[in-house]
Amino acid sequence: LKPIIWDDNENKLTVLDQSVLPFQKVFVELRTPEDVADAIRLMKVRGAPAIGITAAYGMVLAVLRAENLNDVIKLMHDAKSVMDKARPTAVNLSWATSYMLNRAREYIEKGEAKDVKELITLLKKDANKIFDDELEAEIQMGLYGLEKLNPGDVVLTQCNAGGLATGTGLGTALAPVKLAHILGIDVSVIAPETRPWLQGSRLTVYELMEEGIPVTLITDTAVGLVMYKKMVNSAMVGADRILADGHVYNKIGTFKEAVIAHEMGIPFYVLAPVSTFDLKSSVDNVKIEERDPDEVRTVRGVPIAPENVKVFNPVFDVTPPKYITAIITEKGVIYPPFDKNVRKIIEK
Amino acid sequence: LKPIIWDDNENKLTVLDQSVLPFQKVFVELRTPEDVADAIRLMKVRGAPAIGITAAYGMVLAVLRAENLNDVIKLMHDAKSVMDKARPTAVNLSWATSYMLNRAREYIEKGEAKDVKELITLLKKDANKIFDDELEAEIQMGLYGLEKLNPGDVVLTQCNAGGLATGTGLGTALAPVKLAHILGIDVSVIAPETRPWLQGSRLTVYELMEEGIPVTLITDTAVGLVMYKKMVNSAMVGADRILADGHVYNKIGTFKEAVIAHEMGIPFYVLAPVSTFDLKSSVDNVKIEERDPDEVRTVRGVPIAPENVKVFNPVFDVTPPKYITAIITEKGVIYPPFDKNVRKIIEK
Repeated sequence: LKPIIWDDNENKLTVLDQSVLPFQKVFVELRTPEDVADAIRLMKVRGAPAIGITAAYGMVLAVLRAENLNDVIKLMHDAKSVMDKARPTAVNLSWATSYMLNRAREYIEKGEAKDVKELITLLKKDANKIFDDELEAEIQMGLYGLEKLNPGDVVLTQCNAGGLATGTGLGTALAPVKLAHILGIDVSVIAPETRPWLQGSRLTVYELMEEGIPVTLITDTAVGLVMYKKMVNSAMVGADRILADGHVYNKIGTFKEAVIAHEMGIPFYVLAPVSTFDLKSSVDNVKIEERDPDEVRTVRGVPIAPENVKVFNPVFDVTPPKYITAIITEKGVIYPPFDKNVRKIIEK
Repeated sequence: LKPIIWDDNENKLTVLDQSVLPFQKVFVELRTPEDVADAIRLMKVRGAPAIGITAAYGMVLAVLRAENLNDVIKLMHDAKSVMDKARPTAVNLSWATSYMLNRAREYIEKGEAKDVKELITLLKKDANKIFDDELEAEIQMGLYGLEKLNPGDVVLTQCNAGGLATGTGLGTALAPVKLAHILGIDVSVIAPETRPWLQGSRLTVYELMEEGIPVTLITDTAVGLVMYKKMVNSAMVGADRILADGHVYNKIGTFKEAVIAHEMGIPFYVLAPVSTFDLKSSVDNVKIEERDPDEVRTVRGVPIAPENVKVFNPVFDVTPPKYITAIITEKGVIYPPFDKNVRKIIEK
């Protein structure tokens, strides 16, 4: 599973188009930051870490346009501003573009890059390192998460927080299950379809079936019953943004899973790299992205409702810390009280 | 809105095919109990009360086949057994077929029907009375439910517990909203789409838009967020079966709505006629119906997942009494403790 491919020789960025999976397996080349922004907006690339990695390479693509070092900062600024708007909720996106911009500034100011070519070489290393760090973080999260799994466990997830979402092929929420599978431990997954965009039925199911991990698909309406019937031992989900007090922004539907898990006494774990944490914002000032109403009125282009019906289509929700058993990061497992412990782990 | 039409002169049963709404408005004639069973199984007729009414007419259709009174009980027995199997969870179905069978037995034993023709006349009256009683019960539930609404309220529902579901055009869960609208009180509805069968996006939205009642469609994943954001003042749902201790069987997804409403301090009301109550069964022995996995793998015939994915497709769930604010019946409003108060109201 290779959803993001960077060709270091050709400076070519190719991504697996997640908007048509699993029905078609199409790779698209992204040549400019505008291409990257479009791909993110059209959800060809999706999942917070995958978006971050792709945007980092997008910043390299911006520099390819520079004729000399004087152009670079302006070009990267423009690229950042185009790409940051593509998915406002995903903190990894602006984190990655800011990071690349700051690195470029440093290289130029310190004289480490004497021309555009040298700068590109340095920035490519940085973008590659974001990818490598992500994969390493996922392996680490997977190992921490593995401690929460027992042989025979069934894990409920939500959306796709797998290797497609992170771009590495491993994933965040699915990392423990995948490591368990590699180690020969028998675990399986229940995947809710995750309307409107069907990341569960299209991507999580595809990804797990490709790797031979047993998975059962359910509708979003059945999430409650599988917990009521104790058909799952734990829930593991990803995150798009985590606040200092433990509020978790993730794919719409996560909140309901957390509340029911809490009520049914089922452990609810959030798995996310430290780059997902936003220690500055508070729950009152994070805006929840709403998308095109037609995503709800139709499924894969087929109408499912009267065409002029009014629609509310939020794509994320927020889960208060009360409902979260632990947040699993590459730096360690964070337990409640989150308002104290998040900073302890993240800032260490 | 006339989803069930019985022609008393021609003895003809016609139903609005709910499986193709709102895209096509097709009426189908049901000539035999087997036709009725098929229509219920294929969900051309759906909703517990509508199924009950249709099955009652189905029992009349069975008697139309009789040559003399000696044939009747056997024919009705066979019809009952064919129709009862079509939707095992809906208690109204076997209630209606048993009722009609018992009435026929009485008419014959007491000599009130001297031939098949007389029996048919009597049984038609009984079936019509089931319809009329249902409508009257809905008006009564609507009036009780109206007391729980304030001007400007937004009501969250689930599935379709409207006039399509009951066959009367009014409905159970939607009755208070409809009466409010008739009385000029400004209320609106948020309808979750209710996968896999999309009763929310197809039927509830259609029915409310037809009547000019404001409705907003959401995905099933957004049910939590609308409650978290306090965008709704109450939740009102129907029921397929209610036990003596207050356990409510209803469309898959009801349980999660109830748990979140409870957690967010939003009143959660179940509206159902007394015919929905099953005072004999316990939560351990009610089987939850599972339907064809392809209902989950596809939406309106379009694939949304790898075609061979394993699926769990339960179509009802069970909500424990703890999460229910009140059960609104035509005989009155039942408050906790349900294990005491259900019998008080239902058996009065």
